Amino acid sequence: MKTYDFQSSNAFVELFEIPPYRSGALEGLSFAVKDNIDIRDRSTSYGSKPWRETHPPAAHHAVCVEQLLMAGARCVGKTVADELTYSLDGENHFYGTPVNPRAPDRIPGGSSSGSASAVACGLVDFALGTDCGGSIRVPASLCGVYGMRPSLHRISEAGVLPFAPSVSTVGVLARTLPVLRQAMRVLLRSQAQALPPVRNIYLLQDAFEIADPAIRDALSGCVASFDGLPHVTVKSISLREITGLDLSLRSYNEDALRVLQTAEIANALGGWIRASQPEQGPNFRAGYRNVESFDRSAMSDALNLCEALFARVAAFTRPGDVFCYPTVPVLAPKKGVLTGRNLDAVLDYYDRTMAVTSFAGVARLPEITVPLAQVDGLPVGLSLAAGHYQDEFLLDASLRLWG
Amino acid sequence: MKTYDFQSSNAFVELFEIPPYRSGALEGLSFAVKDNIDIRDRSTSYGSKPWRETHPPAAHHAVCVEQLLMAGARCVGKTVADELTYSLDGENHFYGTPVNPRAPDRIPGGSSSGSASAVACGLVDFALGTDCGGSIRVPASLCGVYGMRPSLHRISEAGVLPFAPSVSTVGVLARTLPVLRQAMRVLLRSQAQALPPVRNIYLLQDAFEIADPAIRDALSGCVASFDGLPHVTVKSISLREITGLDLSLRSYNEDALRVLQTAEIANALGGWIRASQPEQGPNFRAGYRNVESFDRSAMSDALNLCEALFARVAAFTRPGDVFCYPTVPVLAPKKGVLTGRNLDAVLDYYDRTMAVTSFAGVARLPEITVPLAQVDGLPVGLSLAAGHYQDEFLLDASLRLWG
Repeated sequence: MKTYDFQSSNAFVELFEIPPYRSGALEGLSFAVKDNIDIRDRSTSYGSKPWRETHPPAAHHAVCVEQLLMAGARCVGKTVADELTYSLDGENHFYGTPVNPRAPDRIPGGSSSGSASAVACGLVDFALGTDCGGSIRVPASLCGVYGMRPSLHRISEAGVLPFAPSVSTVGVLARTLPVLRQAMRVLLRSQAQALPPVRNIYLLQDAFEIADPAIRDALSGCVASFDGLPHVTVKSISLREITGLDLSLRSYNEDALRVLQTAEIANALGGWIRASQPEQGPNFRAGYRNVESFDRSAMSDALNLCEALFARVAAFTRPGDVFCYPTVPVLAPKKGVLTGRNLDAVLDYYDRTMAVTSFAGVARLPEITVPLAQVDGLPVGLSLAAGHYQDEFLLDASLRLWG
Repeated sequence: MKTYDFQSSNAFVELFEIPPYRSGALEGLSFAVKDNIDIRDRSTSYGSKPWRETHPPAAHHAVCVEQLLMAGARCVGKTVADELTYSLDGENHFYGTPVNPRAPDRIPGGSSSGSASAVACGLVDFALGTDCGGSIRVPASLCGVYGMRPSLHRISEAGVLPFAPSVSTVGVLARTLPVLRQAMRVLLRSQAQALPPVRNIYLLQDAFEIADPAIRDALSGCVASFDGLPHVTVKSISLREITGLDLSLRSYNEDALRVLQTAEIANALGGWIRASQPEQGPNFRAGYRNVESFDRSAMSDALNLCEALFARVAAFTRPGDVFCYPTVPVLAPKKGVLTGRNLDAVLDYYDRTMAVTSFAGVARLPEITVPLAQVDGLPVGLSLAAGHYQDEFLLDASLRLWG
């Protein structure tokens, strides 16, 4: 693997040094911060130069940044985010494309693209990201690093730019599982507590079926290794068996979560875009057209479906249960391909990927992606998800399985 | 009681008419919206004229407003909020003081002051509010109406101005318990589900002890009426018995929740205040001085304590359990008293009130205040709280007890 430095990775928007406030659990570790999370006295770009120019500098670090500094970690810079974080590509019109060191001709994935790249290039031990529709999980998987989206609202979002409040989370991308666990436990403010052992591993059929056959094959060995685990039941399960509803994973996204997300994103960005008419990259512009043309007055069924699905997954899930599936159902697309000229490629990437990422999104579950496999040298992540608020169990379970 | 109209109530910032999108569960009901919640094509003031002047109009209604319109309710206007919602007074430097019709010489309480006033004056059936440290519960109690703060993050906050994301909620103030329940069920997207009966009513000793003796006496009859309920155990309980920690209710607020709130509020407001140097009312300015002088680098113990308390209350609480206590431990202060000239009165009002409101705040519990009693003609609310995410049970329990 070719090596990249802070410049050549193109992962960073700004480099600086904020020393830890004191020693602590994260002593000796360095981290970077996705540029939709405030750093004191600096302007947060949200992945958009016009946003940066029309908003004042932050008066304070985001709470999550302070937590890491209080725990002994050192902050080294801000990383590129996709434009207004509304993308899973990692190709930013204003700031360029952070390198995917495992596949330099491919996208890193987004929107925490710079955070994934910085970790994958070995420039930091871990990085803060945010995840709404997959923005931590997707770039972590495509760049071959660990990443965790926590349960909805377990981590403070103060000082993080609002996006889709019913879905957005703050989380971590890391180079190892112990580092991921340590950083996440600081942010989650985890207590000493007894955690159940893993009892059931549910292989989510619908997600495996959506995945490219090569990805299924590549992950089959990892999945087979679960069979030897003592006291663990491994079982293939369909979304229908979990929810009791005759609903595909695609519909789970398209008829439920995506509607809620789209509505909330319009609330977060609409007023500013209308008033400022900012320069926009072509991909953002195309995506945002869907937001603007969306009929908000007809979304009550979708909102209710989201809540019903959340409640049904919660009712199904027991302590000790984990769900397992491919993090991303496709390999990293080549750079420059996901444009309006290749609409089919764009739709395939988004529709399949978000069908899979919507499972944890709707159910507000914590999910960890682990870089376990590869296809033609390209990283492939396997995800584990656990019940709502079972973040510490999930971290513990991942470490027992692969630590 | 003297009657007030839309003008003389001083509850409204703007009056307009948004008809329902269709018929539904809220057909025939009118509502108002606290002015930190977006209404399309209008500028949201956040209780501050300079904020209104420096931010663009909203491109969309907040999701919670759309939910009510989709369910058949009619929106009639925006109500006064306390300045940047950082107050429990209801006396706004820019917009004046909404009338407390039950005690016109007293404050209505804040920060959902206009929403409480509009409901108490009989001008709307219900109103949207937000609650961080008591901003729905306090004005509902002081004005003698029903109010509910839901479990943290059960209701979409898209289109609601960010304040303290780890504590802030969207909720409802209403003239009757059935209307409160109906509106809340729409916002919560409640499913048909079996709900447990009330099994235990825990009278929170620490909160009763903090309350004025006259308030304790006034509520004693309501509390005594629980004794006749079949299959219900009524038990006085201390915070120490619930959490297993030797911590007073004041400390629960001052050493835990208030620190988290203060940090998060600084994130929400700090950049804008520093860059715009906006006109501020004297009470806001005095309060915000504490936010600015606060040492963020030393808050990790408080953040950890918040999470520990949340986990301990969650571990204690069983389905069918409710906690019961005075909503506000003091009677509505006279208008114009809570100023820097009467610092002792200000501290007494805030320290005691927020000690009580912090119980649900830290534990992310849903809480309903019910206007059950009075002292010298002044309304006194009794609160019920239930476990995290047990919102539907709490609404059902309240209706069984007092519907």
